[in-house]
Amino acid sequence: MSSNKLKAKSHMENLMEKIVSLAKRRGFIFPGSEIYGGLTGTWDYGPLGVELKRNIKNAFWRSMVERREDVVGIDAAILMAPKVWEASGHVGAFSDPLVECLACHHRFKADSLPVKEGSGSSGKNNQCPDCGGELSEPKQFNLLVEAMLGVVENARQKVYLRGEITQGVHVNFKNVLDSTRLKIPFGIAQIGKTFRNEITPGNFTFRSREFEQMELQFYIKPNSRDAAKWFKYWKEERMKWYLNLGLNKKNLRFREHAADEKAHYAKAAWDIEYAAPFEGWKELEGIHNRGDWDLRRHQEFSGKDLVYTDDKSGKKYLPWIIETSGGVDRAALFFMIDAYDEEKVGAEQRIVLRLNHKLAPYKIAVFPLLANKKPLVDLAKKIYLDLKENFMVAWDDRGNIGKRYRSQDEIGTPFCATVDFDSLDKKDVTVRDRDTMKQKRVGIAGLKDYFSVKIE
Amino acid sequence: MSSNKLKAKSHMENLMEKIVSLAKRRGFIFPGSEIYGGLTGTWDYGPLGVELKRNIKNAFWRSMVERREDVVGIDAAILMAPKVWEASGHVGAFSDPLVECLACHHRFKADSLPVKEGSGSSGKNNQCPDCGGELSEPKQFNLLVEAMLGVVENARQKVYLRGEITQGVHVNFKNVLDSTRLKIPFGIAQIGKTFRNEITPGNFTFRSREFEQMELQFYIKPNSRDAAKWFKYWKEERMKWYLNLGLNKKNLRFREHAADEKAHYAKAAWDIEYAAPFEGWKELEGIHNRGDWDLRRHQEFSGKDLVYTDDKSGKKYLPWIIETSGGVDRAALFFMIDAYDEEKVGAEQRIVLRLNHKLAPYKIAVFPLLANKKPLVDLAKKIYLDLKENFMVAWDDRGNIGKRYRSQDEIGTPFCATVDFDSLDKKDVTVRDRDTMKQKRVGIAGLKDYFSVKIE
Repeated sequence: MSSNKLKAKSHMENLMEKIVSLAKRRGFIFPGSEIYGGLTGTWDYGPLGVELKRNIKNAFWRSMVERREDVVGIDAAILMAPKVWEASGHVGAFSDPLVECLACHHRFKADSLPVKEGSGSSGKNNQCPDCGGELSEPKQFNLLVEAMLGVVENARQKVYLRGEITQGVHVNFKNVLDSTRLKIPFGIAQIGKTFRNEITPGNFTFRSREFEQMELQFYIKPNSRDAAKWFKYWKEERMKWYLNLGLNKKNLRFREHAADEKAHYAKAAWDIEYAAPFEGWKELEGIHNRGDWDLRRHQEFSGKDLVYTDDKSGKKYLPWIIETSGGVDRAALFFMIDAYDEEKVGAEQRIVLRLNHKLAPYKIAVFPLLANKKPLVDLAKKIYLDLKENFMVAWDDRGNIGKRYRSQDEIGTPFCATVDFDSLDKKDVTVRDRDTMKQKRVGIAGLKDYFSVKIE
Repeated sequence: MSSNKLKAKSHMENLMEKIVSLAKRRGFIFPGSEIYGGLTGTWDYGPLGVELKRNIKNAFWRSMVERREDVVGIDAAILMAPKVWEASGHVGAFSDPLVECLACHHRFKADSLPVKEGSGSSGKNNQCPDCGGELSEPKQFNLLVEAMLGVVENARQKVYLRGEITQGVHVNFKNVLDSTRLKIPFGIAQIGKTFRNEITPGNFTFRSREFEQMELQFYIKPNSRDAAKWFKYWKEERMKWYLNLGLNKKNLRFREHAADEKAHYAKAAWDIEYAAPFEGWKELEGIHNRGDWDLRRHQEFSGKDLVYTDDKSGKKYLPWIIETSGGVDRAALFFMIDAYDEEKVGAEQRIVLRLNHKLAPYKIAVFPLLANKKPLVDLAKKIYLDLKENFMVAWDDRGNIGKRYRSQDEIGTPFCATVDFDSLDKKDVTVRDRDTMKQKRVGIAGLKDYFSVKIE
């Protein structure tokens, strides 16, 4: 590795450490069950993290459901009848012993790996065919987390925590059709928790055992021309969504899955990848043409007719499905990483999280210049409470103003409003911009409108 | 039972049937995994149900977090270290054989029941001491749902799906203190899924095995005077919240738990109850004084210091906790039941869901008077898309206007806006109010403002 590459690598690793530390220190993300030593692959979102995640999910819902004519939402249960997972292929597919690459996490059937040179037929190669990383021992994997349902100790039913939120949509395809007036093409969006027995959870919240997905299942006519059109459309829409929420274009790319990498059901599969500060490009969202795999399998396994009838042509068919499947936790992580910046301000360094205004946990922070001057505190408190009716607003009256700015910069608050002695006469405050650090006086009466325009 | 009571009972039972049928038919709530014969105690929220639930949760968050100075949010993982549930008493408490009343669902230790007269010492009474209902056989109950975590078949760790969201807050008490500037008294709110091995799930979504809770854990000084003050405050706040969102006052009441009914940790326990159309008054939300039970137990079981230091007095103590714990699914169910109304309109009957505007899935429906007149459809579509930028809006161009009104009444849409031939010249539409059925002309340019005022 060249010296430059080494330096870049070290910076990137540093960046991850900084993000993890900031997340803990400021209340974005804590290790799950931390006081008990943690539970591997689980994470708790703190006061700022829960707001960041809510903002991401609300932006998804707004873009994918509220603003659209052709998409509705759904919220299916995490616990589903076990047969769902036989139909989806999740139960059958994990009966072979597999090895997993400890670096890139790709999985391979143990008996399909090339034999190591000179080791005889029993010696398997322990290098990953994709990235050269070290491979795990062959193991009987079970991706799905089993749960025991029912009351009595010795008469319980084995079920699975859902391994993807996708199937909760497809099993309700007919219910949605029957209760709405939707006609193909149309989509069903969903946000919810998923559980997977990941062999190597890691890289902070990137790969965990409990995580949240945001998905669209879009039902189309079963032909390649429609599929190509909608696949292209949704690929572009989803990339635009990430760009509009502030991810840097140079850190995003599309990547098509190789033929041997595609899931068994996928007719086409592309990822939106992010240039992660660990191990390079990483999947942020997948766009897949699932064909009629899901509906065909559920029809077969449930014995229920899931055929769609076109009410104009009278044609009957099983629709194909274009899926967009993103991770809320990955999005939150990459939004934080992408927004993280350090810069010199005079002699000092400041850390600033340049989060899109829509995503920032707090939109505004209100400060009285001095905490021991009652008129300043009273006026600031009044402004704080007024703004709180419309925005998430922080309050800070400790230390000097410079320190308070740094504290808000670090959590991405776009604006700080300071009440000083002039405010009492002139009925205005100093509004300071996170990104430019420029300050301007804004009348108190017009603050709400000022921020409404700036933040939308 | 008197004839009047019988009639009332039959009406109430009818009401439940009507709600279940409406929920399925219009896409509020479907049985979970329905095409596979269902999975007892699980429910899927359809296109309208997911919006109703979102509206309830957003109203909770707005009232309990966004608008308050003394409360922050959190979102902890569903999977927690098993020791959490030893500390909370959930694991130990369920080692005795219990019987459960099939009517009121109260549980009793099998060996604490009064002996049946004349049955000898071995014959247990099979009548519920509280309501006289039939008791189940004694069983080894395990309220917590077990899950197997880990990759390899024969080396997995038994964990539990959380049986209440409460503990995810308390294990993060120190993390929240360290990452914010909160001082006692302060609260941590959370919304999330919970799982319980209920012996008798039933009454639609009222008692299920997977459900969503919305809670506040409010930390206070450990003395009875503060506890009484905050207990009273939160009881009233939470009752107001339900009333402000439209529940009928006569269908709500407070009920104090009897001494033998209180949880082991509770110093005080009151329920907000709703007059359910099944089995009478039912718990909608609980307000509890948990004392220092949770923090004391987690301190003991984790070995971590959870003591709070008052930075003014220097006093060190374990705070007490006032908890408000509500069910999102129960709230959704009772909001629907409470809003359900039937009335005669001329010769016809209409069903109307008088949901609070904030809770209604759609706020407005836009209709072109005739679906085959392009200028009407074009103008209506333009209005629909404009309004969709700010509200959840439905579109309907099928059948006569009366039918479309009925269809929107049934799902609680507060306003319908119809584009007719006059609209083309006069640039206005007919706006019809769900509750009064009154109609008025409103200028198209002013529609957004008109609805903003009406809906807020």
